[in-house]
Amino acid sequence: MSAFPRAEYLGRLLRVKAAMAEAGIDTLALADPASLNYLTGYDGWSFYVHQFVVVLDDREEPLWVGRAMDAPGAELTTFLSTASIVPYPETYVDSDDRHPAAFLGEELSRRGRGQGRIGIERDSWYYTAKTHGELAAALPGARFIDADRLVAWTRIVKSPAEIAMMRGAAEIVSRAMQVGVDAVAPGVRECDAVAEIMAAQIHGTAGVWGDYPAALPSVPFGRKSAAPHLTWSGDRFRAGTVGYLELGGCHNRYHAALARTVSLGPPPGPLLRLAAIVGEGLETALDAARAGVTCEAVEAAWRAVITRAGYEKASRIGYSIGLNYPPDWGERTASLRAGDRTELRPDMCFHMILGMWQEDWGYELSETFRVAESGSPEVLTRFPRDLIVKG
Amino acid sequence: MSAFPRAEYLGRLLRVKAAMAEAGIDTLALADPASLNYLTGYDGWSFYVHQFVVVLDDREEPLWVGRAMDAPGAELTTFLSTASIVPYPETYVDSDDRHPAAFLGEELSRRGRGQGRIGIERDSWYYTAKTHGELAAALPGARFIDADRLVAWTRIVKSPAEIAMMRGAAEIVSRAMQVGVDAVAPGVRECDAVAEIMAAQIHGTAGVWGDYPAALPSVPFGRKSAAPHLTWSGDRFRAGTVGYLELGGCHNRYHAALARTVSLGPPPGPLLRLAAIVGEGLETALDAARAGVTCEAVEAAWRAVITRAGYEKASRIGYSIGLNYPPDWGERTASLRAGDRTELRPDMCFHMILGMWQEDWGYELSETFRVAESGSPEVLTRFPRDLIVKG
Repeated sequence: MSAFPRAEYLGRLLRVKAAMAEAGIDTLALADPASLNYLTGYDGWSFYVHQFVVVLDDREEPLWVGRAMDAPGAELTTFLSTASIVPYPETYVDSDDRHPAAFLGEELSRRGRGQGRIGIERDSWYYTAKTHGELAAALPGARFIDADRLVAWTRIVKSPAEIAMMRGAAEIVSRAMQVGVDAVAPGVRECDAVAEIMAAQIHGTAGVWGDYPAALPSVPFGRKSAAPHLTWSGDRFRAGTVGYLELGGCHNRYHAALARTVSLGPPPGPLLRLAAIVGEGLETALDAARAGVTCEAVEAAWRAVITRAGYEKASRIGYSIGLNYPPDWGERTASLRAGDRTELRPDMCFHMILGMWQEDWGYELSETFRVAESGSPEVLTRFPRDLIVKG
Repeated sequence: MSAFPRAEYLGRLLRVKAAMAEAGIDTLALADPASLNYLTGYDGWSFYVHQFVVVLDDREEPLWVGRAMDAPGAELTTFLSTASIVPYPETYVDSDDRHPAAFLGEELSRRGRGQGRIGIERDSWYYTAKTHGELAAALPGARFIDADRLVAWTRIVKSPAEIAMMRGAAEIVSRAMQVGVDAVAPGVRECDAVAEIMAAQIHGTAGVWGDYPAALPSVPFGRKSAAPHLTWSGDRFRAGTVGYLELGGCHNRYHAALARTVSLGPPPGPLLRLAAIVGEGLETALDAARAGVTCEAVEAAWRAVITRAGYEKASRIGYSIGLNYPPDWGERTASLRAGDRTELRPDMCFHMILGMWQEDWGYELSETFRVAESGSPEVLTRFPRDLIVKG
């Protein structure tokens, strides 16, 4: 029942093992739910307890090490044989005395990794300071090597099967955007608009079922739109305000994202001017996003357009996107920003998001795209790029 | 715009400072989004980057230390004055060279905490191994003290204003359950039922707007119901299967949860027998959940009922519930299980969840309740407790 055939996972593992060898790692202990899914297929809302996947350099299948209650889920969603599923007892859950990482350490010790060179995802949510402390205490002879983005970097180029998932996700988010644009109107409660959007995200389409996006719909208007990560409340949208919808679509944990701006009333002049420039900047930057070009060159193409018009933007204009879990659909690897010399390669996917936040309103415009073999990218999301004016 | 008046936050801070003094902590550095919200009101989907709240023993307001882009959100959602909001530059986001915890360490050093006794939430998601490493490196003269559940334990007894939020959340989830029970039917895709449920969760009611629950709806049927944390797919519900709905309701980040079991067709005999016993166990355990009783005594009351009938259950039967963020609505403090001697006090809230998972089907029954000043608890959720039979 895993989302991809066994061969796809074994191919991913070969690439991970090559990266481990290069980094001098014999045992890779992973805690990021995206790493778990990528290497085994494991999928469940169980990451509120500790769980791990361990890649051993001399073993074909990784080990899934998780809560006993979740072992049946591992049987159902991974490509692993039962021998690779190692449950820890319920007494380790939320306990002050027993930590799942101590269990993991004992398991690794039993498997002869007491003197191992153990790669860890040091800055992954879900690899807590205590996890590391307990694992290190259980394996005093081991050496720990930071492998924080090792698996994330192997995820950055997508396979044809993954690209198919991305296209499905893009179809979902493009439809959800229309639902959102229709729902947002003066007098409507924010929560009621978001409810419609989330229903569209989860229904998906007739052919593509909707999985939960790793981040929530963002629908801030008026003063709230200057604060990009606020969530909704029971407040009502008001006529004369400007805001944006930043939405995700998800299929089998793969994401596409899309943002558009809406003016609830006649748009102010400065907004119209900004919208035109950002639109031009988007086209220019998208056109620059070709195989062989660096991330920073894509950002520079955008920056040239807005600088000429007298604008500036301090934050990055995009990031690698794909398989993920809350709280983030970004892959935390390549960013489209100055200083990032990652070279674009075919089948990398990015969410290019141009957010310009002023004191009283914000403007956002985004697309999710796939780097093509040659020429300009395949834009996966589909929605008119104009500023939307309602009422 | 914070969810509670300033006085409520100051009262919470007094209790936290008392706990700090008792633990010998002068500086408490928090990373758990629930801790941030509880002590400042901060609310945003921004926990995919590092962010902190720091309680200094000699300063009335805590410091919010987060990403520059999120400082406007801190202005909008916290009770803090601008001087208490300390943004770090965008260059710290997803960077290999600069870590937000190093910025935090420098800030604390500047404020004279270089030799501080610094409390940390060592096993909180969001306090990663790298966060701790960077903070410790920036403050080599400091001493670190594990304060993992210090704030969580101060959250366990709710104020009247918080109880009002819990009641609102319970109203939402009770309605969402009806929507879910109506939506689940043979031939319906799982995602389509979940879409209806999520819309109900987020619409809320006319008086209570729906916030996002910290965990997703769970609707596993058939073989999937033996794996409690699987999420949905595009599979269709099938006649003759048994499954359950485990749902949350949320208002202003406060949660109530509710689970019921549905048989899509005539229920098998063993299920009917189990349902009767679990129902009796629930009533018995609820009746035992009185102020002054220990958590383990509540579980023992349940266990006596099922043992007599020849059943057993290894996992806990409930946990403290309230304010939280993904991935978990539980507070990770008191559990209703053997060995937990926490004494129930008035205005603690628990989700009592009786889950019995067999090979091919699972049975769940739950309620969210408030411990009363005297007598049996106030059950916040409202839905008939019988096994639901459809078709």
